Amino acid sequence: MNPNLLVRMQELRDLSGLVGLATWDQETYLPKKAHDARAAQLGTLQALYHERLVDPRLGEWLDRAEPASEDEQAMVRVLTQERERAVRIPSRLVKALALAQSNALAAWREAREHRSYPVFEPALAALLVLRREQADLWGHQGERYDALLEAYEPGMKTARLLPVLGALKAKLVPMIASLTRGARPPRLFGGGGFDLEAQWAFTVEILEAMGFDFEAGRQDKSVHPFTGGTHQSDVRLTNRFSAEDPLPAIFSALHEGGHGLFEQGFDPSFSRTSLAQAPSMGLHESQSRLWENIVGRGRPFWTHFLPRLQARFPQLSGVSLERFLSEVTLVEPSFIRVEADEVTYNLHIVLRTELEVDLVKGTLSTADLEAAWNDKVKAMLDLTVKSPLDGVLQDIHWAWGELGYFPTYALGNLYAASIWRVLEREVGGVAEALARGELGVVREWLRERVHRHGYRLEAEALVERVTGHGLTDRDFIEGLEARYAELR
Amino acid sequence: MNPNLLVRMQELRDLSGLVGLATWDQETYLPKKAHDARAAQLGTLQALYHERLVDPRLGEWLDRAEPASEDEQAMVRVLTQERERAVRIPSRLVKALALAQSNALAAWREAREHRSYPVFEPALAALLVLRREQADLWGHQGERYDALLEAYEPGMKTARLLPVLGALKAKLVPMIASLTRGARPPRLFGGGGFDLEAQWAFTVEILEAMGFDFEAGRQDKSVHPFTGGTHQSDVRLTNRFSAEDPLPAIFSALHEGGHGLFEQGFDPSFSRTSLAQAPSMGLHESQSRLWENIVGRGRPFWTHFLPRLQARFPQLSGVSLERFLSEVTLVEPSFIRVEADEVTYNLHIVLRTELEVDLVKGTLSTADLEAAWNDKVKAMLDLTVKSPLDGVLQDIHWAWGELGYFPTYALGNLYAASIWRVLEREVGGVAEALARGELGVVREWLRERVHRHGYRLEAEALVERVTGHGLTDRDFIEGLEARYAELR
Repeated sequence: MNPNLLVRMQELRDLSGLVGLATWDQETYLPKKAHDARAAQLGTLQALYHERLVDPRLGEWLDRAEPASEDEQAMVRVLTQERERAVRIPSRLVKALALAQSNALAAWREAREHRSYPVFEPALAALLVLRREQADLWGHQGERYDALLEAYEPGMKTARLLPVLGALKAKLVPMIASLTRGARPPRLFGGGGFDLEAQWAFTVEILEAMGFDFEAGRQDKSVHPFTGGTHQSDVRLTNRFSAEDPLPAIFSALHEGGHGLFEQGFDPSFSRTSLAQAPSMGLHESQSRLWENIVGRGRPFWTHFLPRLQARFPQLSGVSLERFLSEVTLVEPSFIRVEADEVTYNLHIVLRTELEVDLVKGTLSTADLEAAWNDKVKAMLDLTVKSPLDGVLQDIHWAWGELGYFPTYALGNLYAASIWRVLEREVGGVAEALARGELGVVREWLRERVHRHGYRLEAEALVERVTGHGLTDRDFIEGLEARYAELR
Repeated sequence: MNPNLLVRMQELRDLSGLVGLATWDQETYLPKKAHDARAAQLGTLQALYHERLVDPRLGEWLDRAEPASEDEQAMVRVLTQERERAVRIPSRLVKALALAQSNALAAWREAREHRSYPVFEPALAALLVLRREQADLWGHQGERYDALLEAYEPGMKTARLLPVLGALKAKLVPMIASLTRGARPPRLFGGGGFDLEAQWAFTVEILEAMGFDFEAGRQDKSVHPFTGGTHQSDVRLTNRFSAEDPLPAIFSALHEGGHGLFEQGFDPSFSRTSLAQAPSMGLHESQSRLWENIVGRGRPFWTHFLPRLQARFPQLSGVSLERFLSEVTLVEPSFIRVEADEVTYNLHIVLRTELEVDLVKGTLSTADLEAAWNDKVKAMLDLTVKSPLDGVLQDIHWAWGELGYFPTYALGNLYAASIWRVLEREVGGVAEALARGELGVVREWLRERVHRHGYRLEAEALVERVTGHGLTDRDFIEGLEARYAELR
């Protein structure tokens, strides 16, 4: 490879790692009064990254890249795509977007205080105008939403996504109706008093069993759990702990641990190259959902781990495996996405995706967004939204200007189910291994088939290579059917 | 000020803050396997900093700076000096120095393993050649050591420094002889068992009493204590704790806290400018030494804090104030600089400075360095070096290529004593306030007279403005005489 190109690619990856460090620190250890200074530091770093990326010399080096291997070809492809998208956005629009995002965030916070969507609406409308302009500059074949989706899920198209989500919705709505019949058992964790250090130790025990390498990563505390870091040898998970209920921290550890294993699993030769990243948010999410939901809500996992949980929390000593499983697989339509169970969760995503597509297309105006939201909640979840805090104002993402990101959560669930199906078939005896606490068989297979490839292939192409087919809702639906038939 | 200049200065300060973050993280939370990746990230960041600093456009902007105030004039002066030094060093030499440093570090570690200075000597000799070349490129008036000193103590000259250090030595040697007569009391802290969390809490109590703002800074753990951070609103102290003895952590908290107050105390209007830094390492050290030694080994301080220390550590309950003071003011010549008491400490610095000046001048060869070291230890401390680990191989600084840095430790002690003398006179009743635990009077006076000025003036000029005179050993010697006359 052209040595200038290699050096610049490494430099960009280092800068991106430093953005990761400054962001992680902002959410974990940054002193309260330093947030303005940190925003300035991050702004400087991101501006430098942008400047080095759009540098015309990088364009020339990419044109005469002389890749010496398939991996180098992939590096050139990934960096070229990133650069071409960046080059198309004039700095005028970058600045206007930053300002509009900042305004929308302030308006969203104010709207939540006043419990009033109309307080947020004008700022969202202004942001939408700019995001549409950005989508047109990025370019598309008539479906503007494609250009936005591409930022999070390269290669995915609206025309391919919507039918799958539509089929998913059509199957989930009746499934949920049948799973929610009957009386709800009382909550297991009403009593509280779950020692925070014991929770921390249990999450570390799970992460170690998963094979998360604490010599190439960490766990820390933050208000919202996330996975960050600076390099495949420096992967940083965060979590939060409440004495009321240990389950959120446990499932967050499984979720972020799944992301973390992906990052730690990149081929070592990808260090400081464009291949040392997941090809899409959806594929990244497939790894977190696989561990959180498919493994983490399953009977085999808890066959091993429930006794260990009970050893740490004596107040759970009388709880049977059946009772515990009924708790972690409770299906119940609710208003808030981030608190939703694994079955209803996807309807929250379908709802947002349908609204986003219509907003971007212009067939839905921001003025009508709240009513459209509430109608869809009624149609999909049979719930009546009483407060916008439980409805259209619940997520911060639109105030950040994120359009095209929500669907990656559903893609993650669908990809996870398809990958899991092959894993079960190829590995054999997975349930038995998990019931013995041997999570390593899952990790090793995922590392070999998914993680180590990084960004060698686009997400759906990788899934197709692993499973023999592309995006489908079938494996996800059948996985749920099998689990809930066995449980109920 | 020229707006291009302002933006570039802010960018440089942000990058420098990010170097601070990446370095702090490296010593506190970085996973074990990530050290190579971090070295690459820091290399990229520092290369970018250098590139933006030597950028010819910055030179032009500085030439047409149009400063609108005295502070802006000072900003232009500081940034111009930094840039001119950077421009003079070709990237060939920068790379050669980095390589020679890396070789010297490896050789130093190997030499320590083999307890053999000759294993280190060739690498040190190679580094010295390059540092001499660098000094000549930076420029000097015949005294090459001046150019090296300038990197740490801008404005200080060898011809001004050596006589003061010589006078200091001449007074310290007899003073030490008189202070070390008589039997040494048994160590207070032989028993160990000092709870680490209680030590942490006590250091936080002291830092809070000093006025260190934990909303604009933190304390964390590292192998060697240091003060770092990213901005005056984000100042990060580190410390280390041993169950054997709580004193090292306590005095480190006072020391790093003194550095931290300086950083937190810069005028808020200096944010993201070249003035938001201390004018020299010596002046920075004056603030740490003032708290560690002048305040922290004094009777007034411990009148308040000894009962509080005893409340945390019951094993100290029978210790009288006199007995405790005799422990923290014990004077005893020893081999290791970092373990030396406040009186003998400066002789360790004089020794290193004399050797450095001769090495740089060429009147001492690296081949003769170990013998010269051992002779000076005998002459100044009346000790016979048996192992180079207790002698010439004890410090890492020369392996880093640091020449001109050691004297700033002595400058810190001398400046601290001169500043303290004025503080005592102007504030009045300081001893009584300290004995009531009111450290705020000291902090506020220092903030007003020293900290808030940042890099407005060079170090000695600032000291002169505060005290009416420049560098002198008088206040330091008289301060010691007063303290030890009262104690003995």
